[in-house]
Amino acid sequence: MSILSLPQPYLLFLGDAVDERDAKTAMGLRDWAGDRCVGEFALPTATITTGLSRLTPEAARARGAQSLVIGVAPAGGIVQPSWIPALREALEAGLDLVSGMHTRLEDVPVLRRAASEFGRRLIDVRRPRETFPVGTGRRRSGQRLLTVGTDCALGKKYTALALARAFAQRGVSSTFRATGQTGIMISGSGVAIDAVVADFIAGAAEALTPDASADHWDVVEGQGSLFHPAYSGVSLGLLHGTQPDVIVMCHEAGRESVHGLPEFDLPSLKEAIDVTLMLARRTNPAVRCGGVSLNTSTLPFEQAQALLARHSVELGVPCADPVRGGARFEELVSACLGT
Amino acid sequence: MSILSLPQPYLLFLGDAVDERDAKTAMGLRDWAGDRCVGEFALPTATITTGLSRLTPEAARARGAQSLVIGVAPAGGIVQPSWIPALREALEAGLDLVSGMHTRLEDVPVLRRAASEFGRRLIDVRRPRETFPVGTGRRRSGQRLLTVGTDCALGKKYTALALARAFAQRGVSSTFRATGQTGIMISGSGVAIDAVVADFIAGAAEALTPDASADHWDVVEGQGSLFHPAYSGVSLGLLHGTQPDVIVMCHEAGRESVHGLPEFDLPSLKEAIDVTLMLARRTNPAVRCGGVSLNTSTLPFEQAQALLARHSVELGVPCADPVRGGARFEELVSACLGT
Repeated sequence: MSILSLPQPYLLFLGDAVDERDAKTAMGLRDWAGDRCVGEFALPTATITTGLSRLTPEAARARGAQSLVIGVAPAGGIVQPSWIPALREALEAGLDLVSGMHTRLEDVPVLRRAASEFGRRLIDVRRPRETFPVGTGRRRSGQRLLTVGTDCALGKKYTALALARAFAQRGVSSTFRATGQTGIMISGSGVAIDAVVADFIAGAAEALTPDASADHWDVVEGQGSLFHPAYSGVSLGLLHGTQPDVIVMCHEAGRESVHGLPEFDLPSLKEAIDVTLMLARRTNPAVRCGGVSLNTSTLPFEQAQALLARHSVELGVPCADPVRGGARFEELVSACLGT
Repeated sequence: MSILSLPQPYLLFLGDAVDERDAKTAMGLRDWAGDRCVGEFALPTATITTGLSRLTPEAARARGAQSLVIGVAPAGGIVQPSWIPALREALEAGLDLVSGMHTRLEDVPVLRRAASEFGRRLIDVRRPRETFPVGTGRRRSGQRLLTVGTDCALGKKYTALALARAFAQRGVSSTFRATGQTGIMISGSGVAIDAVVADFIAGAAEALTPDASADHWDVVEGQGSLFHPAYSGVSLGLLHGTQPDVIVMCHEAGRESVHGLPEFDLPSLKEAIDVTLMLARRTNPAVRCGGVSLNTSTLPFEQAQALLARHSVELGVPCADPVRGGARFEELVSACLGT
């Protein structure tokens, strides 16, 4: 058993992207792992930028880059034929390739041959090769926080990153633990938990968050939702394996039904917290809710603040939007830490 | 996407077994799929029997056998070197090999070569090769019953088989849906749900129990337990994907802690039923508990009857031991069918 570990620092590949929304991975790496990104590399037809230095693979290698990360995801998640000469150039320059695309890098013959020729690695973050033991439920030392959600795709990764950063800023020893491909690229290691064989979900989560010193916090990126008809199994295995001391419930203001499945209403925040705590007690009887992380990106400032205040009063826990930060977020951080 | 389908009828292989407890698979197939077993085949040193005709692979093939099933599981689940000539003989006689062992049949060079030479298949039931779509939560026609449990290994498969048989005896159209290797061998098809990639647990369960006529019952073999620290993810994905109309809660009399994890107390039957129904409502708001299946094999008759009666009164649902059958079991069957 071993956790995937990526060669850093990175050179960020933007392909021929002309829409910033296609480059969420690159932007996320710039924002959350900027100290481990030496620059960006793009085809001449690309019109977007991360703002980092534009470098050739050779120049990036000279500045210490260890891998080229594919930081764009066009519709379908396919490696574009137009990228292949550039990707080959990176391998030739001595960089490994890191990808979260649907296409397996090894299934691209040019890349497979070049990797072999230049002794480089092709790393598909989406497909873990590690095997994990079955979970044991054994209590581990150290503290753990897990971000959970009423649904998918509403800010569980962002919330975990923001909390881990805030913990560190307060001098608290903490590690962001990634469970999805973008998180793994940001962290440089982790487990794509939804790609693990079902029998080993909890075991993988246990391996991801091992024994640590008593005052250390693992801040774990949640996946899916206990209320999602397709992904609830992943979420429950992750919850039981992580054994969180603290959960933070993530939600998006105004979202009332499951993303892409409008016939499934979302639970109320209160129900979501109650059900999650009830199930989490199975492996950690002392689990508590640190608060709510509310994605208010669709709301103007005043409305967002009013909503956060209302939820906080109704639920009796801090409620903040980590993107907006401020006193409410600091209150959430304090509540999570129990300080 | 496709569900694994096994070539039947079977010839049951007993290896060199001298202890009937090592031959649970063969005995289960005799009991539950006897109409699809042409006989047994064993090495001269074996001392046990299923009671079926002892046949050579060639004779079995002449009687219509399509595959040899490895019906014994010595400690470790390893294909024994002493078996290999006999397994090769079966391939040469025109039988496919079906195995639920840990050893991959393809990893045994003699068998791999013989399968290729004689044009036969090596089928490892433990390792599904099918891929499944992500679950959709779409409601499907027909009725579904899922056996669930307070723990692993206490009778969920047996209960599902007994209920499917009882439904058929009452003239109700029903199909046993297998989710584990022994169940798959008995049924001849199914999905080893704990071997599916985590993201697709619910999707696989949906595929296993497709649209059917309104009065048809799928009786689905449960796996793991929502209360098991290692396997709860499998159980929740199976629950949400199956969308059961009826659950039957399985338990073993006297078991108070998780099998092999004595520090984890089991929930009460009432708590187990309440939590399961609460979570199951997410994909089927009309789900109900048909009753309790209690494994009373450790108790004498009078004590077992008294315990079944007590649980039934306390929980307000029928409680029966399917192995003991009788009026209590018929009452459970009626409650499941709603008749």
